[in-house]
Parts: sequence; C-alpha cells; structure tokens
Amino acid sequence: MQVISINPDRLLTDIRTLGAIGRDEGGRLTRLAATDADRRGRDTFVQWSRAAGLDVRIDSVGNIFAIWAGRNGLDRNPLLIGSHIDTVIDAGVLDGCYGVLAGLEVIRTLRERIAEPARPVIVAAFTNEEGVRFAPDMMGSAVFAGALSAGEALAATGTDGAVLGEELARIGYAGTETPGFFRPEAYLELHIEQGPVLEREAAEIGVVEDLQGISWQRIVITGEANHAGTTPMSMRRDAGHAAARVIGFLHDLARAASPPLVATVGCLGLSPGAINVVPGKATLTVDMRSPDARRLGEGEAALATFLGDLAEAGRFAISTTRLARTEPVRFDARLAKIVEESARDLGLSSRRMTSGAGHDAQMLSAIAPSVMIFVPSIGGISHNPREDTREQDLVSGANVLLRTAERLLQNGVQTSGPEKPPSLP
Amino acid sequence: MQVISINPDRLLTDIRTLGAIGRDEGGRLTRLAATDADRRGRDTFVQWSRAAGLDVRIDSVGNIFAIWAGRNGLDRNPLLIGSHIDTVIDAGVLDGCYGVLAGLEVIRTLRERIAEPARPVIVAAFTNEEGVRFAPDMMGSAVFAGALSAGEALAATGTDGAVLGEELARIGYAGTETPGFFRPEAYLELHIEQGPVLEREAAEIGVVEDLQGISWQRIVITGEANHAGTTPMSMRRDAGHAAARVIGFLHDLARAASPPLVATVGCLGLSPGAINVVPGKATLTVDMRSPDARRLGEGEAALATFLGDLAEAGRFAISTTRLARTEPVRFDARLAKIVEESARDLGLSSRRMTSGAGHDAQMLSAIAPSVMIFVPSIGGISHNPREDTREQDLVSGANVLLRTAERLLQNGVQTSGPEKPPSLP
Repeated sequence: MQVISINPDRLLTDIRTLGAIGRDEGGRLTRLAATDADRRGRDTFVQWSRAAGLDVRIDSVGNIFAIWAGRNGLDRNPLLIGSHIDTVIDAGVLDGCYGVLAGLEVIRTLRERIAEPARPVIVAAFTNEEGVRFAPDMMGSAVFAGALSAGEALAATGTDGAVLGEELARIGYAGTETPGFFRPEAYLELHIEQGPVLEREAAEIGVVEDLQGISWQRIVITGEANHAGTTPMSMRRDAGHAAARVIGFLHDLARAASPPLVATVGCLGLSPGAINVVPGKATLTVDMRSPDARRLGEGEAALATFLGDLAEAGRFAISTTRLARTEPVRFDARLAKIVEESARDLGLSSRRMTSGAGHDAQMLSAIAPSVMIFVPSIGGISHNPREDTREQDLVSGANVLLRTAERLLQNGVQTSGPEKPPSLP
Repeated sequence: MQVISINPDRLLTDIRTLGAIGRDEGGRLTRLAATDADRRGRDTFVQWSRAAGLDVRIDSVGNIFAIWAGRNGLDRNPLLIGSHIDTVIDAGVLDGCYGVLAGLEVIRTLRERIAEPARPVIVAAFTNEEGVRFAPDMMGSAVFAGALSAGEALAATGTDGAVLGEELARIGYAGTETPGFFRPEAYLELHIEQGPVLEREAAEIGVVEDLQGISWQRIVITGEANHAGTTPMSMRRDAGHAAARVIGFLHDLARAASPPLVATVGCLGLSPGAINVVPGKATLTVDMRSPDARRLGEGEAALATFLGDLAEAGRFAISTTRLARTEPVRFDARLAKIVEESARDLGLSSRRMTSGAGHDAQMLSAIAPSVMIFVPSIGGISHNPREDTREQDLVSGANVLLRTAERLLQNGVQTSGPEKPPSLP
C-alpha cells in the first residue's frame, strides 16, 4: 500500500493566514457570522479554492461549496467534506477552520496524486455554526439538511439587531443555489476534539462514532429571603442551599451514570445577593448530555423527581424552563470503521469516542452517512485563544481525512467488518 | 403596684411622622447617615425633644442626646436609652427609630407621672448605625464608647465619595460635645427583633441576654473552566460544585451546632458563567454567627479544615479573606432580670433570647451595664418596606422600657434573683 500525504506547510500556513483575519486591536480573533470579518475570511477561502481549480458555489443561506467535479460532475452524488469558518468571540484558530482548510488541502493533494474521480469531491464552509450572532447554531448545515427552512434562517435577527439575510447580501454571500442542491453520498468532518480525552489517553486520532444529545434547562428556586443573623437555621427556606443540593445531586448522578452522562451547572445567581441575607431566590442553568437517548431522558426525569422532592421537603417553589434539547446522533458505523482503518494504514493510534459538542455533522447525518474525525486539543481547551493542537497532530488528522477520502473514492468501502458498505464510489 | 403607660397615639404618630421623612418619588424610605434626608429626620427628633422640655446636645460625630437633667444634672451618671434614626436603602419605619422614639415617649411619660429623678435620663440617636453610606456600622456608638476615634469616624469616606465630617458640618450636626462626655449608669435599647422567633413562639417581649459574634469571610475557589460537553466528569475541577459542597457543609455544621451557630452563604458568583462551561472559579461569602465565642471560633476552624481538605481532594486553589469579625456580647444579667420582671409586671409573656444582628447596645455594653428589649417582627422581616410590628406589640415594648426605666429610677434595682444590683439610682 502506498500512502500519500497532504502538504503540511501548505495546510499550516493556510490555518495561520485565515486565523490572522478578524483580529481586533488587542489581537483577539472574532469572526462572527456574516460580519465584515467573516466576509474577509470567506473571500480568502474562496480565493484559495479557485486557485486550487475548484468551482465555487454559494447557496441562499451563504454556505460555500468548493467543488472538484470529477468525471461526472453533480450527476453523481458527491463526497462532501465540511465544517465552518465562523468563530466565537475571542476564539482560537482551529475550531471549524481546521476541518474546512484540511478538506481543501485534501482535494489539492488528491488532484496532484490521483486520476479524476467518478464522483465529485466538495469542501463546504457552512454558515453560522457557532450561533453567537444568530440563533440557532449549526444554522447553515441545518438548512442544507432540511431541518430548518431558508426563510427562517434568513429572517434571524442577530444579537446586534441585524437580519441575517440582509447581512449576507451586504457581504456578498447571498448565493443563488438552493440549499440542498446536491445530496452527499457521504459526509466527513475533521475537527479538534475540544476536550481532554485524546490527550489524556495519548491517542492520535478520535474516531467519532456518536454525538451527545443535549438538554438545557433553567431552574428558578424560590424560598424566602431572611436576615442571616436573626433567622434560626430551622426556620430558613434558603434557595441558595437548595441550589447547592441540586448541584450535588447532578454531580453524583452524572458520576455514577452508565451509559455516560455529563451534567453541568454553569450559571448560578442568588437573590438578593447580600452577605447578610439568606438567599430568597436562586437561578441556575443545567447542561446535561449523553450519547444515549434513553440515559439522557432518564437523567432529566431523575432531576425532575429530585426537584419535586426538594420543593416539597423545603417548602420551595421550583420552576424549570427548557432552553434547548437535541437527541443524540449515531454516526455511520461503516464510515467509522473506514476512518479507523485509515488511521491504522498511517500507523496512527486511534480510539472510538463520543462528540461532546454539537457539529455540522449532526445535521448532515440526517441526509447522508456521516462520520467525524477528531485530533487532540492541548489541555482540552477550546473557544479560547489558547485553543491549540500540536502541528504533528493537525497533519496526522488531515492525512486520515485524506486516506479516508481516497479509500472511499478509489477502493470503494472495503472494511474488514461485516457491515454493509455505502454505495461508494 | 400601680402600672403606668406611655401614650400609644403619641408614640405611633411619631413613628409614622418620622417614617414619612426621606421618601423618594416611588415612596421608598431612605435616610442614609448625614444626608439631607437624615438632617430632616434629625431636625424632627430634636424639635420633638425640645418640645418635651429636654436639653439637646450634639457631640462631634453627630450623636444626638436629648437630656432630662433630673435633680442633679450630669453630676450623676445618667440612665441612657438609645438607638438610631438612620436607615438602610428602601427601609421600613421601625428599625432604630422605634427605640429612639419610644425612649422619648418614655421620658415624656415619666415627666408627667413621677417626680424629678436623682439622675438624668437621656435618649440618644447615634450616628450611622446602619453603615450603608459610611463604614463601619454602629459608628456613632463606637465613638461614644471609645472603640473608634472621632477623627477616624469623621474622616470616613462614603460610598458616594463624601466625607462624614464635612457632611455632618453641612447638615448642621457637627456638634461641640466630646464623644463620651458622660458615662451612662446603664444603657437600655428597645428594638424590633428583625427575626421570626418571638412571632413563632407567640412571646410578646424578648429579653435580649446576649448578641452574636459575627464572622464574615469571602472565599475564592479556583478550579478549571472546561467545555460542559467534552469534559468527562472524572476530569473536571468544577469550582461551582466545590462551592456547593461548602454551602452544604456550612448548613450541616450550623444545623447540628450546640451552642447555636448560624451560617449563611448570601453571595455566590460563578465564572465564566456560561451554560455550557464548567465553572473555573467560584466566589462566595460566608456569614457565621454565634452567641458563644468558642463555638464561633470552632465554626471558623471547621470551615478552614473543610476548605483545606476540599482543595487537596479536588485540586482546587482556595483563598479566604476576612471581611469582618466581632466577638459575642453578653448583656448585663441583672438588667435582663429587671426587664423580665418588668414584662411580668405588665402581664406580658417574655422569653430570653439572643440578638442575631449588631446594635448600638453592643458598643455601649463595653462602658455600661446594658440590655436590649425586643418586640416581635411580623414574618421576621426587616431592612425591607414590609418590616412591621403589631401596634399592640409596639406599645407593649415601650411600656416594658418605661417600666424598666421607672424601676431603675424609683425603686433601685430590686430583682428577685441573687445577683448584685448596679448602683442605681
């Protein structure tokens, strides 16, 4: 077997160059969807794609597709590689961008090394994955996959009052293609892990077989504000103590859970919030995630039961508001196996894992066999300027993406396992 | 025994009249120390005192003394009754004011009913008891009792940048008397309970035999902020969960404590404070109080041990800052017995109790035998516009104050107990 490699310098230079676009005076990187900074990032990606000989098309919600048409053009369902180039506020340079630029680099390499494929290979940069300026997140891929209408997306009003459709027109990315103008034969997304697991376990490649479902709730606990000195412990209805019990309950629940469940209280406010006043009200958020749909539902039910008991025992009024809810996604097992074998071909260690965060791949998985490839995040840090991955790992990840694409295009889906392969090429 | 009574209408009208001074457009009552609103309140009290035939003197830190000189003037140590007329923001009408106006009403009644006493009776309104605008609280009584120098107090800078000395001069209450210009033979302070105990136990009078020591700390717990989806439970250093454990520990510690201890976490902030980020930092306050000095020290030590163990077990960095610390005060047992007997004389139920809050009496107790009398607070509510006490209870409290003063002035200190009486009259 002859193993080919992407051009490391070209990929790393692209990442650095795109990461320099959208910096403020303080050096902070922010390219929110459909802003001027996003336009400059998009223009750069489009320019590089055209320089690579690709045909660039934009759909009506601003998703960018750089197309290597192959022998048959869009008459054959394409192999789609994608991610996003919008960022959070004060971001790192890898989240999303790595997957898009590695996809472009994979096509460049394939064009240099193999014959025109039977089906197109396309790299996509989806609009507004982060959802910082416009809600919901993963917007472009949701529209492409039919989970959200283009009209709803274009009417979204941003945190700054701007309307997405108008902003896309303003920056020149209100395209003419209809979202979903082709149907991918398979979808691959390469991404940094954004967590500590690969680093801790010294694995070079994460084969992402599923993606957690997410449950977000806000809980408001109302007790009674009282003087901290004059109110005996037995006569208190301390909403802060009740909130502390919720935090402890969720922690213990998640620690003991199998299949795994994670639970986080990231926000907590006490009212009136004075050193000498027993809190009369506590407002907290709960983020609960599991790759197992039943486990996630059981976690929510256990929390609801606990809150009911707590309210009754402590004479609290407790209300909950659902803020977000997504079901877990199971990626395509055949593709996961091909990624695993591709890593093995390259002599890289890999492990199966769950994506803790949401990604465009969860939208695409509704319309095409999909899989994700992770590379280690140093210290597990992401959504932060310190977000980083060793250069060697970035190159390895891109080579696994290349090898996976190559196998899908050239050799068909030959896994060593018993599963039925998708009809590629 | 012939029992005399204050004039209920006169007292209740005074309370309502003073409580109408310092209202904003929204009807909220705020008379912070040495503001224009405080001046109007002071002027009213001074005018009423002069109308009652009393000699009004002001000391250099603005404490007001309305003096019924008796037969011997300040050649004899006076019986001092006091409290304060400054308020918190958005206050009720009773905290402090009730004690001052009841003191005035007691003198009015005594003048109408008994002969000139051998020693003076003085009612005091101490400056800045609440400590909202200028720190520390209980400032005027602290200076009077020698716990704080007049110079330090007058140099205090307010939350609005104003200097107390300049503000007192501006409102006409930079007086000429030297703080501590007389030494009280005994000090009596009548106050609303500001807690729920009397109401819950259906007792009409609280005989306050001690006042809790107070320990205030700020705790900062530093862990590690991480993605709520991608960080396994076992790899987290969740500062919010650590804070929840501190709250639970303090609650259990206080619930089990004997002698009693109360502990409150009134403020808690999580950083970065996002729904999908494991808190990397938690900042919380601890208010711990006990009437028993050893128990309070043990509570602080137990918390320190818990924090040390928590830091080690959870790889947290934990720092604590002491914000305030006062030792418990034990009021004069002979005076407490006289208050108890006075309530019994009037057919009122009473119970011994601890003051959970700080009061001017804790300063005065350092220089004179002191005691406090509490009346029930409806719902235990205070520092709030809903602060209230039944009119019947307000009158009863004032009558116990009257009866106590009468006994001290007319009959000497004749208790049924074995304790040595103070040298009154």
